[in-house]
Amino acid sequence: MSDLTLALDAMGGDFGPQVTVPASLQALERFPFLRLSIFGDQNAIKQYIPADFPHSNRLHIEHCSQIVTMNDRPLTAIRNRRESSMRKAIDMVQEGRASACVSAGNTGVLMAMAKLVLKTLPGIDRPALISTLPTLQNKPVYMLDLGANVSCDSDTLLQFAVMGSVVAQKINDINKPRISLLNVGEEAIKGNDVVKQTAELLKETCQLNYIGYIEGHQIFEGNTDVIVCDGFVGNISLKTTEGVANLLFEHLKQAANSSLLMRFLSFISTPFLKNVLCKVKPDQYNGASLLGLRGIVIKSHGNADQQAFFNAIKQAISEVEQRVPDRIQDSLESILLEKIC
Amino acid sequence: MSDLTLALDAMGGDFGPQVTVPASLQALERFPFLRLSIFGDQNAIKQYIPADFPHSNRLHIEHCSQIVTMNDRPLTAIRNRRESSMRKAIDMVQEGRASACVSAGNTGVLMAMAKLVLKTLPGIDRPALISTLPTLQNKPVYMLDLGANVSCDSDTLLQFAVMGSVVAQKINDINKPRISLLNVGEEAIKGNDVVKQTAELLKETCQLNYIGYIEGHQIFEGNTDVIVCDGFVGNISLKTTEGVANLLFEHLKQAANSSLLMRFLSFISTPFLKNVLCKVKPDQYNGASLLGLRGIVIKSHGNADQQAFFNAIKQAISEVEQRVPDRIQDSLESILLEKIC
Repeated sequence: MSDLTLALDAMGGDFGPQVTVPASLQALERFPFLRLSIFGDQNAIKQYIPADFPHSNRLHIEHCSQIVTMNDRPLTAIRNRRESSMRKAIDMVQEGRASACVSAGNTGVLMAMAKLVLKTLPGIDRPALISTLPTLQNKPVYMLDLGANVSCDSDTLLQFAVMGSVVAQKINDINKPRISLLNVGEEAIKGNDVVKQTAELLKETCQLNYIGYIEGHQIFEGNTDVIVCDGFVGNISLKTTEGVANLLFEHLKQAANSSLLMRFLSFISTPFLKNVLCKVKPDQYNGASLLGLRGIVIKSHGNADQQAFFNAIKQAISEVEQRVPDRIQDSLESILLEKIC
Repeated sequence: MSDLTLALDAMGGDFGPQVTVPASLQALERFPFLRLSIFGDQNAIKQYIPADFPHSNRLHIEHCSQIVTMNDRPLTAIRNRRESSMRKAIDMVQEGRASACVSAGNTGVLMAMAKLVLKTLPGIDRPALISTLPTLQNKPVYMLDLGANVSCDSDTLLQFAVMGSVVAQKINDINKPRISLLNVGEEAIKGNDVVKQTAELLKETCQLNYIGYIEGHQIFEGNTDVIVCDGFVGNISLKTTEGVANLLFEHLKQAANSSLLMRFLSFISTPFLKNVLCKVKPDQYNGASLLGLRGIVIKSHGNADQQAFFNAIKQAISEVEQRVPDRIQDSLESILLEKIC
């Protein structure tokens, strides 16, 4: 394929250039068509690039004097972090010089900056973080919002449902994707006011295949294609899966020390178990996409290691190839304009 | 110890008397001081009691003409289900004839009926569902609310924090229990308005050892003693743990079929793995307590099997022995009346 340029925020996440730069080099090795512009402190970045790195011609360092921290508030950061690595990477997408941007930085600031700079698609008020989770049926389920919006009204959740449906249909080739609302019970009477109002809106939107409420334990059952929730609940649910996986792995390690037989069992089964446990930490092992923008922005986990940040870069490439924003926009208007059955 | 009488709602949960009656018989076998009043359809109940059951003298069946279904709304059920097994079991506690009540039925109705009949403790507006979860440090953490209140304001969450702190201190002998708020980030700027307001209230309440926000992946780390959240988030987070455990177990089963070596490994390690996975399904393996009432009400999981309902009965006995409501009341007034530092 022809050349593809991505803008990377090297300074985001818990580890910054220590993780983002080696992941970038890995991506340049793997994808010969890829060009990367890495934004951040040039000295910090350069120390992770070997002098004899063979693909330096496709790697461009863009020095930035500021970084966005985890404590920055969105509105303050928009005003005061115009020279930050995150902002500059987003700017490059807006200027049309990069096809997508990847950051492991502050989610709230990333969402606010991306919304300000790239703007949302027509009909969409707020972008949402979407990712896929594994299921019992060996096909993934899309879940949104995973943390970009800590409070949402029913109109916003309806827009999330529309975007999730379009992505599942256009990107994953699912005919009439099944849409569910995450709730505390399956019965119509359950839930808070926003969830109940959203259910009514979804029932009225006949272009969507709304199938009802699901509970937390049903997320991974594979009986739905898109799970819709606000970013507060979505983030806590997703991170709970990570916590459970860590807990289980620790229990297994402890048990391995309990007897010689268990130690032997552990020795031969650990690689396999690690693989299984990793599957339920989807946010750490893939990037989440900030959906609903006029451009592609991938959010990598703050705690991402090299492989996870590499996966986020891969996901950015895939979304560019699939023209995700264009395809969402094509479908959005017809659904949102003619939504009442 | 002296005799102890419990009131059981036999008709609640997905399986009704098929699970609740055998669990009751198991409890009568185990605890010679226990007397049980089982409320529900007497014919349905009797078919699960063997004619030669040796402890029938401590088992009393109270026939009820109504049941509460999962589709009943709280306010309607309060008006129209006065003869239900759930209501009658709660009434018995209010009348002082039983020391506690156990039900696996509709959570919303149980909470509304218990609140109406038993009333809340002074200073408490709404009861909360509390349970313990396992942690990496091999000591449990209390979490509330797990689903009794789908929306809460900051005053309510403060009351939950006070109740959780008192329970951790008085029942689990934890000196100055560490209180955390479940949120989407650890930084002060993160979260929705209710969480931020609650954080301010908690900081002002110097009798509480408030240590800040925790995220979903930190629930099981053991660095806090009490986790406070609204019932919508708490329920979904708790049920997500159940979903992850189910997913992992399925992956392990599938992997076991992939090779002869894996089948052998699976055969010898399955009992151990089951034990580990069960630990992260706390709501299924213990009852949750409806805290803040002038009486003891234990909610068993709707999907509880015999062992889980037996555990809920055991928990009711333990709370009676520990005089949980009295001990909460003793501490509540001093904290709530003198809460400002």
